[in-house]
Amino acid sequence: MQDALIALTKYWTDRGCMIVQPFNTEVGAGTLNPATILRVLGPEPWRVAYVEPSVRPDDARYGENPNRLQTHTQFQVILKPDPGDPQEQYLASLEALGIDIHAHDIRFVEDNWANPATGSWGLGWEVWLDGLEITQFTYFQQAGGMSLDPVSVEVTYGVERIIMALQGVSHFKDIQYAPGITYGEAFGQAEYEMSRFYLDDADVETQKRLFEDYANEARRMLDARLPVPAHLHVLKCSHTFNVLDSRGAVSTTERAKAFARMRGLAREVSALWAERREELGHPLGMSELPPAAEVPAEFAEVTEPAPLLFEIGTEELPPHEVTRSAAAIRDAVASKLAATRLDHGDVVADATPRRIVVRVGRVAPREPDAERFVRGPRASAAFDAEGAPTKAAQGFARGQKIDPAALERVEQDGVEYVGVTRTDLGRGALEVLSGVLGEVVTELRADKNMRWNDRKLSFTRPVRWLVALLGDRVVPVTASSMTAGRETRVHRTAAQPVVPVETAAGYLDFLAGHGIVASMTVRREQIVKAARDLAATVGGTIDEQAEAGLIDEITNLVEAPNAILGGFSETYLELPQEILTTVMRKHQRYLPVRTADGELLPHFVAVANGACDQDAVRAGNEAVLRARYEDASFFWRADLKVAPEIMKAGLRRLAFEEKLGSMADRAARVAAVAGDLGAELSTTDRSTLDRAAALAKFDLASQMVIELTSLAGVMAREYAARSGEPQAVAEALFDMERPRSSGDRPPATVPGAVLALADRFDMLVGLFAVGAAPTGSSDPFGLRRAAAGVISILRAHPALSDITLGRGLRSAADHVRAQGIEVREETLAEVEEFVVRRYEQQLLDAGHDHRHVAAVLPLAGAPAGAEATLREIEQRAGDSEFAALVTALQRVRRIVPAGTRPEYDPARLVEPAEVALHGELVKAKDAMATSALAGFVLAATSLTAPINTFFDDILVMSEDAEVRAARLGLLATIRDLAAPVLDWQALGTSFAAD
Amino acid sequence: MQDALIALTKYWTDRGCMIVQPFNTEVGAGTLNPATILRVLGPEPWRVAYVEPSVRPDDARYGENPNRLQTHTQFQVILKPDPGDPQEQYLASLEALGIDIHAHDIRFVEDNWANPATGSWGLGWEVWLDGLEITQFTYFQQAGGMSLDPVSVEVTYGVERIIMALQGVSHFKDIQYAPGITYGEAFGQAEYEMSRFYLDDADVETQKRLFEDYANEARRMLDARLPVPAHLHVLKCSHTFNVLDSRGAVSTTERAKAFARMRGLAREVSALWAERREELGHPLGMSELPPAAEVPAEFAEVTEPAPLLFEIGTEELPPHEVTRSAAAIRDAVASKLAATRLDHGDVVADATPRRIVVRVGRVAPREPDAERFVRGPRASAAFDAEGAPTKAAQGFARGQKIDPAALERVEQDGVEYVGVTRTDLGRGALEVLSGVLGEVVTELRADKNMRWNDRKLSFTRPVRWLVALLGDRVVPVTASSMTAGRETRVHRTAAQPVVPVETAAGYLDFLAGHGIVASMTVRREQIVKAARDLAATVGGTIDEQAEAGLIDEITNLVEAPNAILGGFSETYLELPQEILTTVMRKHQRYLPVRTADGELLPHFVAVANGACDQDAVRAGNEAVLRARYEDASFFWRADLKVAPEIMKAGLRRLAFEEKLGSMADRAARVAAVAGDLGAELSTTDRSTLDRAAALAKFDLASQMVIELTSLAGVMAREYAARSGEPQAVAEALFDMERPRSSGDRPPATVPGAVLALADRFDMLVGLFAVGAAPTGSSDPFGLRRAAAGVISILRAHPALSDITLGRGLRSAADHVRAQGIEVREETLAEVEEFVVRRYEQQLLDAGHDHRHVAAVLPLAGAPAGAEATLREIEQRAGDSEFAALVTALQRVRRIVPAGTRPEYDPARLVEPAEVALHGELVKAKDAMATSALAGFVLAATSLTAPINTFFDDILVMSEDAEVRAARLGLLATIRDLAAPVLDWQALGTSFAAD
Repeated sequence: MQDALIALTKYWTDRGCMIVQPFNTEVGAGTLNPATILRVLGPEPWRVAYVEPSVRPDDARYGENPNRLQTHTQFQVILKPDPGDPQEQYLASLEALGIDIHAHDIRFVEDNWANPATGSWGLGWEVWLDGLEITQFTYFQQAGGMSLDPVSVEVTYGVERIIMALQGVSHFKDIQYAPGITYGEAFGQAEYEMSRFYLDDADVETQKRLFEDYANEARRMLDARLPVPAHLHVLKCSHTFNVLDSRGAVSTTERAKAFARMRGLAREVSALWAERREELGHPLGMSELPPAAEVPAEFAEVTEPAPLLFEIGTEELPPHEVTRSAAAIRDAVASKLAATRLDHGDVVADATPRRIVVRVGRVAPREPDAERFVRGPRASAAFDAEGAPTKAAQGFARGQKIDPAALERVEQDGVEYVGVTRTDLGRGALEVLSGVLGEVVTELRADKNMRWNDRKLSFTRPVRWLVALLGDRVVPVTASSMTAGRETRVHRTAAQPVVPVETAAGYLDFLAGHGIVASMTVRREQIVKAARDLAATVGGTIDEQAEAGLIDEITNLVEAPNAILGGFSETYLELPQEILTTVMRKHQRYLPVRTADGELLPHFVAVANGACDQDAVRAGNEAVLRARYEDASFFWRADLKVAPEIMKAGLRRLAFEEKLGSMADRAARVAAVAGDLGAELSTTDRSTLDRAAALAKFDLASQMVIELTSLAGVMAREYAARSGEPQAVAEALFDMERPRSSGDRPPATVPGAVLALADRFDMLVGLFAVGAAPTGSSDPFGLRRAAAGVISILRAHPALSDITLGRGLRSAADHVRAQGIEVREETLAEVEEFVVRRYEQQLLDAGHDHRHVAAVLPLAGAPAGAEATLREIEQRAGDSEFAALVTALQRVRRIVPAGTRPEYDPARLVEPAEVALHGELVKAKDAMATSALAGFVLAATSLTAPINTFFDDILVMSEDAEVRAARLGLLATIRDLAAPVLDWQALGTSFAAD
Repeated sequence: MQDALIALTKYWTDRGCMIVQPFNTEVGAGTLNPATILRVLGPEPWRVAYVEPSVRPDDARYGENPNRLQTHTQFQVILKPDPGDPQEQYLASLEALGIDIHAHDIRFVEDNWANPATGSWGLGWEVWLDGLEITQFTYFQQAGGMSLDPVSVEVTYGVERIIMALQGVSHFKDIQYAPGITYGEAFGQAEYEMSRFYLDDADVETQKRLFEDYANEARRMLDARLPVPAHLHVLKCSHTFNVLDSRGAVSTTERAKAFARMRGLAREVSALWAERREELGHPLGMSELPPAAEVPAEFAEVTEPAPLLFEIGTEELPPHEVTRSAAAIRDAVASKLAATRLDHGDVVADATPRRIVVRVGRVAPREPDAERFVRGPRASAAFDAEGAPTKAAQGFARGQKIDPAALERVEQDGVEYVGVTRTDLGRGALEVLSGVLGEVVTELRADKNMRWNDRKLSFTRPVRWLVALLGDRVVPVTASSMTAGRETRVHRTAAQPVVPVETAAGYLDFLAGHGIVASMTVRREQIVKAARDLAATVGGTIDEQAEAGLIDEITNLVEAPNAILGGFSETYLELPQEILTTVMRKHQRYLPVRTADGELLPHFVAVANGACDQDAVRAGNEAVLRARYEDASFFWRADLKVAPEIMKAGLRRLAFEEKLGSMADRAARVAAVAGDLGAELSTTDRSTLDRAAALAKFDLASQMVIELTSLAGVMAREYAARSGEPQAVAEALFDMERPRSSGDRPPATVPGAVLALADRFDMLVGLFAVGAAPTGSSDPFGLRRAAAGVISILRAHPALSDITLGRGLRSAADHVRAQGIEVREETLAEVEEFVVRRYEQQLLDAGHDHRHVAAVLPLAGAPAGAEATLREIEQRAGDSEFAALVTALQRVRRIVPAGTRPEYDPARLVEPAEVALHGELVKAKDAMATSALAGFVLAATSLTAPINTFFDDILVMSEDAEVRAARLGLLATIRDLAAPVLDWQALGTSFAAD
C-alpha cells in the first residue's frame, strides 16, 4: 500500500502539485486540512497533494469490520484552478497506481457534495472501478459560504479500498502494507485500541469540557484575527464532537447547538482567511483562466443546403440531465433557428453522458432577404394643410436617411401611417448558426449548475469541447473561452481518444464506429436485450417493468453499453430479498436476475461502459457485491440479536430536527397520533395498531437501516416477525413507511395505514410549525412526498373516511404542542391547504377534468369521498338530467347573495311556482340519506324542473321585503342542501350541452 | 524540498522500511510518534521511515528568525534491530539526496541523547555536513525505563537545515519548497499565526485545563490497559505543557509537578505497551541478531617470530574515548600476554576515531614448555610404616593417573610432600593470541557503554570489524558474533572502502597510504602545523596553549586531518570576542585565528576529515558560522534592548531544582549569602557587592545565554557595562561565575569572589539538603566543581580568610532554611567534609606530600591559611630543628591519653626536667602571637630540648596519682598549644632524618 502512496505522490508532484503533510490534529477528511478548505478560497492558484489519515470515531469497529476503520487513509489532490482536463489527469494517475484502465470499467457516477453547515458544496462524481467506489471527484463551488472563483478540483482517493481491490483481499487487515508487513500487523492494535477509546472508554465529561475549551479558543483566535489557529481549534472541536457522538453522548439538542456553533466558527474562519489573504496582497498571485475566444467576424459563403451537426461535449452528466438536456438543447436550437429566416429541416437531439448531439437536416445556405415597413407618424400628422411634410415627418425622414418625399403611406389597424419599406438582407448560414449555437452554449442551464475553468459558462458539468459542422465545414462558433471545431472525443481509453469528424452527415454512425451509441432509445434497447440474453443463460430474466427507472438510469450512465453477468453466493439468498435488491439497485446499479416467477437468482447484470476485460470487470463487480452483502449479513446477524424494544431505545441518539427533538420523540408523537386516529378501529386492528405504534420506527436504529436507509419499514417487518411479533404487527410496521415514493403502493393494512397517516401528519404539522415548510425547490424533509402520501393512503382506505385531514392535523398539532412547540391555527390551515394542493395535483396529473377536480376539492378533507364524487361526476358525463340539475343549482347559487341564511317562512310563499318548489324541496330533503353525490342526485333531480319554473315565473327580488326574504331563503336552502356535495359552480360548463 | 522528502522516502523504502504518516496530534519530535517510542520496545523487528512536522512552541519566532520555526520538518528512520551498517546506509541516503559525499566533509560527532524524565537514552552522534548539524543518529539503549533488546538505530534528519545548505539559502522562507513555491509562500502565514498563538494569544487558563484533562484521560486509558490512546493523551499533555511554557505561564513548581506527572504516565505507557505486545504474542515476530561466531579449535603452527597487528574497528568514538581506549586496550593486551608464557616485544597502541591499533613486536612462535609440581599428601601421610603407599597416596596417584611408585618427594615450606612433576606444553602463538585478543574484545568497556547488533559485546560505540595478523597470517580470533580477519576499512568515501591487509609489519604506513594517520601525536602535530601555516597566510597564528583542549578534541575527531582556512565578515568582530570564540570552539570545533597580540582575526581553521572539495567545505563551514553569528548578533541586539533589572525578572521562568525553586529564588539566596559574607568588606567593595548581588545571574535570562550557556557571566559583564553599571559591578558579575572549570581562573575582584563563594555555598548546601548530593559518577549539578571552586576562590583570596567554609555554609543554610527547607546539622557537616575532600585532592594533585596535606587538612576551613601552613612545612624540609620539634611534639601527643585536660598544678612538678619544661612552656606561650606555623615554630622550638629531656628523665606514669596528673597535664598543655597549628601526627616521619 505504501507503494501506492508513493506512486500517487510522484504522479501528482510531476504534475506540479506540492506535497504537504497530513494535518497534525485529528481531521475527519482531507478536505478539512487547511491545505484544502482554506486554500480553495480566494483567487490564488494552488496545487497540492497529500495523504490524510482521516479519523472517524463513528466508524470504529475494533478492527473487526472488513471495510470500516476509525482511521482510513485518504489521498487528497487539489487543482486550483481547474486545469481543464482533471478527469484525464486523474485517469492517468490510476495507471500510475498500476491499474489497467483499458481492462477495467471506470466510470464517473454522479455524486455531489454538500456541507450546508459550513456553506460548502460542489458537484462531481464518485469514481467507480468495476463498481467499486474508489475516489470522490468534486468541483468545489462554494466554501464557508463564499462562492469560489476560481473553482477548485478536489480528488480524494480512498486508498484502502483501492488497495484491497488491487490486492484482491477482502479485509483491510490483509492488505500487504509494505513488504513483509500487513496493514493489520502495522495498525491493527491501534485500530482496536482507538476503537475502544471512541466507542467505550473516552470520558464524556472530559470530552464535553474539551469541546467548550476548543470552541472558546477558536473564538478568541478569530477575535485576534488569526484564521490558522482558529481553524485548528475548529478542527479539534469537530473531532471532539465526533468522539462524543460515537460515545453516544450527544442529545439532539446538544447536537443542534454544537453544529450551530461549529458552523458559525467555520464560516468566520473562511471569511477571515480570505480577508487576510487579501490584506497580504494574495502572495501566491492570481489564478489565470483561459481567455475568451475571439468572436468570428467574417463568415465564408455556403452555396448548397447541408446538414448541421452540433455536439456539446461534457464531462459525465447526471443521468437525468442527459435526458433533460437533450430535450432542452433541441428546443433551444429549434426556437432560436425559428427566430431567424434560415430554412432548415428537422431538429433532432441525442445524448450520452458525455455529449449532446443536435442534428438539423438540410440547412439552407442563406436566409432570404426580407422587407420590413418602418412606421413613422400618422399620415394625418405627417402633412400639413398644404400637403407639405410636417416637422414630425421631416424628423422621421431624417432619422431614416431618406427624402421626405419618399415616405410611403400604409394603413395599419385602421390608421394610416407614413413610413419607409426597408430590405433586410439575409445572412449566410454560417453567420446565423454561429450566433444561434453560441447562444445555446452560453445559455445552457441545468437543475443544478456549476462553474469550471471558464469565466462565463455554467452547466451541470463542465463543457469541454464543441463540434459544429455544416456539411463538411466547421461552423465558427464561440462561447466564452470555447471555440467549436471538428474534433470530438470518443472513449477516454481509446487508442486515439480525440478524433476529427469529416462531415455532419452520418454522425451517429461515425460515433457507432467508435463504439458509442448516441441514441438513448437504442442504448436502452441494447441494454434490455443484452441483460435479458445474459439472464437467460442462467435461466432467469430481467423484469423490465419493475426495473424501468433503474434501466433509464443505466442508459444514461454509459455511452457504449457492455452488459456483464455476475453472480453471488447462494448463501446470501437467505437474506430478505429487499436487502439484496436494494444493494444491487441503489448502490451498484445492477439489474437483479429473477426467475419467471419473480424469484431472485444469485446473479446480476452490470452494465459497463465500453470495451473491457470482461472477466476482470466481472470479478471486480462480484467482489464489490460480495463485500456489500458481507456487510449486510453482518448487520443482519447483529440486528437479529437485539429485540425491537431494545433497538428502539437507540432512536434517542438519532436526531430528527433541532426543535422537534430526536427520532424517539418523533416516534412517540406518531404513536400518540395513531392512538387518537385509531379510536374507531376494530378490536383486532386496534390491538395490532397499539403494538405496532409502541414499536414504531424501531428499525431506524438498526445497523441495517442506518446503512441502507431505504430499507426502513422493510427491516422493521423482518426483525419484528423474527422476534416473535404477530405477523399483523410486522406488516403494520412495514406499511407505516409506505408509500415511499410517488409510484409506491400505499399501506395494505388498516393499522399500517393509520400509522402511516399519523407519521405524515406529525411530520407535516411539526415541520411547518417550526418553520421548515418547503420553499421553492428546497424540500429537505420531503414534505411534498409526505402530503402526497396522506392523500394516497386516504384514497386507498375509504373505510378510514373518519380520518379527515383536519382531524389528523389537529391530533398531530396536539402532540406537537404537548412538546412545548407553538402550532398556530393559521399554520394548520396552511398545512391543510398544502396537502389539498398536492391532492389537486395528483388528480390533475391523473388526467381528470380540471373543473371536476375543482368541484370536489372542498371534499378533499376526506379524499376517498372526494374521489367517489369525482368518479360519480365523471360517470354522469352525457347525463342530461344531471346537466340540467347542475345548471339549475348553479343558477340558484348565482342569484343568492353570499350571507343569505337558509331560512324562510313558507307562509310567505304564495305563487304556485314557489309553492311547488318549496314542496319538492321538502320531499327532496327527506329523501336525501347522505351528502354523497349519487344519493343527492337521486333526491335532488326532482328539483330541476321546479327550480327552472321558479326562475321563469317568479321575480325573486320582490319589492315586498318579506316576500323577497322568503324567496331568497328558499333558494339559499337549496344552495346549502347542495353545497356539501361538491362545488357546483366549479363544474362550470363542463356539463353544458355542446 | 519536497523532492528531498520523496527521495528519502524512496531510499528507505527500498531498504525495507515501511512508511507511516506523521502523527495526527502535535508532537515535539519524530521520536515521540508511537512508530518510534513504542515500537523500539520489546523484541519485535521494526523498520520504519516517516516525515514528522515537529512542533516546538518555544521556537516560535513569527517566522522572523532565519533558522527557527515553531514547526520544523524531521525525517525519521528507525532500524530495529541495528542492521550492522547503519552509518553506511545513512551516508548512501545523503547521496540519494544529491549530496556529493566525496566532495563534502561529513562527520559523526559525539552527541548522546537522554531523556531522564522518561528513562530513555541512547548513544550516538550529530552528523555534520561541512560543520552543519544535519542529522541526529542514535543507538537507542533504553526507553520508558526499559532496556532495549534489541537496540534500535534512530536517524533523524533536520530537513530544513539540509535543504537550506543544499539550496544555499540563508532563511528558511527562501527554501524552494516545490517548483514555483517557496517555503515562506507555502507556510509563512501559518508560521506567523501559530507563533502568535504560542507566544501571545493562547489562553493560559484554557491550556491549564486542557493539560489536566489530557493527563486524566491518559490515566484512565492506562487503567483500561490501552497504551495507544494513553500515549496519544500523554502527547497532547506534553504539547499543552509546551504551549503553556512558551506563554511563560509555568512556574517552577508547576513545571516540576507537570514533568513528574508526564514522566510517570510515559513510563507506564511504555511498560503497558511492552506487556500488551507480549500478551499478543509479539505479532511481528522476534528480531534476529547475528549468531555467535564459531570459536576456533585448531590453530596452525607458526615457526618464526613475527610482529602482531590487532585492530579493533569501531564507529566514531567520542574523542576522549579515543585516548582512553588506546591506553586501556594496550594495557589489556600487555597484561594478558604477560599472563602467558609467550615471548614478545613492545606493545604499542595508536588510535583514531574509527580504530584502535595495537602492535606487538617479535611475538615468539610458541610458548616454551613449563614444568609444574603437582603436590599430593604430606610424605608423612603418604606411606605407612612399611613404606607402602597409604590410601591417601594411592588415591592421589590414581587421580594423577600414575603409578604410586612414581610419586616424587619435594620439600615445600619445610614440609615434605609427595607429588608428581608435570610438563605443561607451550601453546602455539596463534592459540595464545586467539584467546588473549578474544578476551580483550569481550572485555572492552568505556565510561558509557552501549549495545548494538551483537548479543554480548558492549562498548562506547559499536565495534564493526577486527583485524588480527601475526606477520602475514590471520590470527583466528572470535568475540561473540565477530571474527577477526585481514580486512580493514579506510575512509568510507574511498573508492575501495574495505581493503585487505597483507601483513602486520608496517601497518601504520599502510594506513598512511590510505590517508589515515593512526598516531594521535602525529595527527596533533600535523593539525597544529597546518593550522599555523594557514593562519600565517592571513597574518595570524593559533594559540596552541590556549586551544590545547580543543586541539586534543579535534585530533580525535579525524583520521586524516585536512585543515581548511575559513573567514567571516569583519562586522561580527564588533561582538564580544568570547561570543565569537565560544561559537567557534564549542559549537564548531574551529580554531580561532589571532594576531601575535592575541587579537581576533576574522578567520578560523576547520579541520575536515580526509580529502574533500576544499572550496565546497570552506563555503559550507563559513555559511554555518555566518548563520550562528547572525543568530548571536540577533540575540545581542535583542538583549541590549533590555535593562539588566528587567532581564532579571525572567529568572522566575527558569527552573533550578524542583524543591529549591526557580533561578530567581536561587539568585536571591546567593545575594543574601553574599550580604552576610561581605560584612567586613571596604565601603567601596561593599557597595559594588550590593549592586552586583542585586543583579546576580540576570544574564541567565538573556537570549544569548539561553542559547550559549557557557557565556553566563561573560554576558553579564557585557550587558551590565553597556547598560551603564560601574565597571566594578560588571567585573563582579563576570567574576561570580568563575572558576568555570578546574583549569579556569578564580575571580579577580573581591566583590566577585564573595559572590562566587555565595553562589557555590548556596548550591552545595541547597542541593545536599534536598538530597541531590552527587553519587558515584553522577553529579548532574556539578557539585564537585562547585566545591573545588570554593577552595580555589578562598585560596586565591587570603584576604577573605574570615570567610571560612563553616561560616559560608551556615549562612547558606540560613537562607535555604528561610525557604522552608530543612537543612540538618549532619548535612552541613557532610557538605564541609565533601569540600575538604576536594581540597585534599587538589593539593595531592598538585604534588604535595600526602603527609603534609594530611597535616594541614584540619585548617581547610580557611584554605588560604592551610596553604600558608603547607608552604611553611615544605620550606622546613631539611630543617633539623623543625624536625626535632615535630618529633618532640609527636612524642607528646603519643603519650597523652585522649581526654586528658590541659590543666596541671605546677606545684606538683618538682623534678628539674619537669620544672624546666614548665618554665619554657610558660615562655613559649607568652611568645606565641598567632597559631600560624611560622610564629609557632619561632616560639616553640625552644621546647624541643626540654621535652626531650623530660622524656629522658621523667617517668610520666608516676605511682603518685597527683604527680602523674600534673605531668600529663603539662604534656596535654603542650599538645593543645600545638594542635591548632597543624596535625603533627599526620606529618608522620616526613621530617625524620633519613
